[in-house]
Amino acid sequence: MADENRQVVVVKRASGIPTADVFAIIDGPMPECPPHGVLVKVLYAAVDPGMRGWLSAERNYMTVADGDVMRALAVGEVLESASSEWQVGDALVGWFGWQQYAAVPASAVLWQADTAVAPAEAWLGVFGYNGLTAWVGLQHLGRPASGETVLVSTAAGGVGGTVGQLAHAGGLRAVGLTSSDEKVALATAELGYAQALDYRAEPDLGAAIGRACPDGIDIFFDNTGGAIADAVFPHLNSGARVVQCGTAAVASWMPVPAGPRRERDVLVKRLSWHGFVILDHEAQFPAALAELKSLWTKGRLTARHHVIDGLAAAPGAIQLLYEGRNQGRLVIRI
Amino acid sequence: MADENRQVVVVKRASGIPTADVFAIIDGPMPECPPHGVLVKVLYAAVDPGMRGWLSAERNYMTVADGDVMRALAVGEVLESASSEWQVGDALVGWFGWQQYAAVPASAVLWQADTAVAPAEAWLGVFGYNGLTAWVGLQHLGRPASGETVLVSTAAGGVGGTVGQLAHAGGLRAVGLTSSDEKVALATAELGYAQALDYRAEPDLGAAIGRACPDGIDIFFDNTGGAIADAVFPHLNSGARVVQCGTAAVASWMPVPAGPRRERDVLVKRLSWHGFVILDHEAQFPAALAELKSLWTKGRLTARHHVIDGLAAAPGAIQLLYEGRNQGRLVIRI
Repeated sequence: MADENRQVVVVKRASGIPTADVFAIIDGPMPECPPHGVLVKVLYAAVDPGMRGWLSAERNYMTVADGDVMRALAVGEVLESASSEWQVGDALVGWFGWQQYAAVPASAVLWQADTAVAPAEAWLGVFGYNGLTAWVGLQHLGRPASGETVLVSTAAGGVGGTVGQLAHAGGLRAVGLTSSDEKVALATAELGYAQALDYRAEPDLGAAIGRACPDGIDIFFDNTGGAIADAVFPHLNSGARVVQCGTAAVASWMPVPAGPRRERDVLVKRLSWHGFVILDHEAQFPAALAELKSLWTKGRLTARHHVIDGLAAAPGAIQLLYEGRNQGRLVIRI
Repeated sequence: MADENRQVVVVKRASGIPTADVFAIIDGPMPECPPHGVLVKVLYAAVDPGMRGWLSAERNYMTVADGDVMRALAVGEVLESASSEWQVGDALVGWFGWQQYAAVPASAVLWQADTAVAPAEAWLGVFGYNGLTAWVGLQHLGRPASGETVLVSTAAGGVGGTVGQLAHAGGLRAVGLTSSDEKVALATAELGYAQALDYRAEPDLGAAIGRACPDGIDIFFDNTGGAIADAVFPHLNSGARVVQCGTAAVASWMPVPAGPRRERDVLVKRLSWHGFVILDHEAQFPAALAELKSLWTKGRLTARHHVIDGLAAAPGAIQLLYEGRNQGRLVIRI
């Protein structure tokens, strides 16, 4: 076992998309297993769009303070356990952070990763919050009906890639927006999308969305907001559901940027626009995981992982994510 | 019976708030009772904010074409009936329009006005779509819980005045926005509001709303949108419900005006923002009317009517409404 614990710590607030200089890499001492907790060797740690909010000076549902190890979901192997629940050798998913070793209370552990069903990194993705977010957002808030059209921004991302497959499995027509030819191909070949558009390449994104959704849009699963959402709203059908899962297309919310007013669309189209943070929906997790596992074992659900190697690359990873340079769920192999 | 039928007809599209020149007053021939329909002498006709949308060139859920008699809910007395359902002398509520006599099919009739329970004009208000809108918006979309705070824009209007009373009866704290000292007094004295603000008189409306809602806002019953809504949104609690019932504070939607982007508020506060047109909610009407009648007979529900006299005053009535010069439900006595 190493004597030191390499860690990525936050050194300042980010304005806009967090860049590498928001973090420092330090070598801390090897931690000890806490009473009733576990000492975990971290195998993979996640990079998530929500991290921008955690690092912002703005009001957010969660904050990581300066000086703290960067908060992150991770999957790791138990090296020592003082918990009656977990054994040495168990693979666990939890809030282990961007570091080599995590000494955490049992409350930081979310669930066991069943690596017989799927590889360790998949438990940060399709069997982690991404898959749960996709399921809860689509099935619970989107209230889909077979034959409806769902439009997903960030179609090839960790959440969007699962939404497309769930929609396809449920008899919906899924149309995706993404940011490169490769991702368009991935979305339609592997991720259940009937059609996908590279929103950066379309000279008139709104018109392209209209052509791709000839019957309009019944569910807008929105991870981006901003100008991308502006191109989508005119194509929403009466009674459409908007699931606001992220706002990745807006670089900063301080001050709040201006955009087209939505009150009239909401009223005239009788929209239901739901904000959505997966942590509020634990009651739905068992049903979600059951369906995700069922589809996975039937071969109707796949997942791509974009793996970057080592903690040294972690500080630049959020930027990589926001620039859309990842293909699939972005994780750091520790 | 008169030989002529005075009518208010639409002569052009309105841009913004419809002014008197959008209409002409003509004397048409006395109509005949249609097969299976009724001939009604109109007693009171309504003036509604939604009329602006009906008269606009913009997309709307309903349009009144140039040359047509102005569409309006009205209450009238049956002069002749070729319908098996209605008798001469019945008081009916229906789409009778801004005119002295309406010869309409039975499908234009909504329900009978029980003038033993409440006077004829109340069937255009608290026992009409206004009351139904208040009830469905608050109880069905707002999902209120006792002790919560509801903020209502246009607190002293036909809808808002009923929302305040329903909220009060349900154990909520109702806070209202309105547009004069008189209406502030009316809202707090008669309409169930714990506090009301004259939004025109507040130098910092947002700060005033914050003081009036020390526990934040759980339900925003919004009839205005625009700058008024902008002052409300920062005070919404996590999990708040926004019921978009009108957009009266925005003079024109062509082009769509800019305002602060809402995606981040919707996401971070997990808002549920519902567009709402009462015509979609007929299934709720019996429950709504039953509760409204029950509260009325217990003396826990009142209604004010602002009556303007004669069809000659009808063309300017929508402007009067949008300028907030009415106190209570605005109706035209024919």
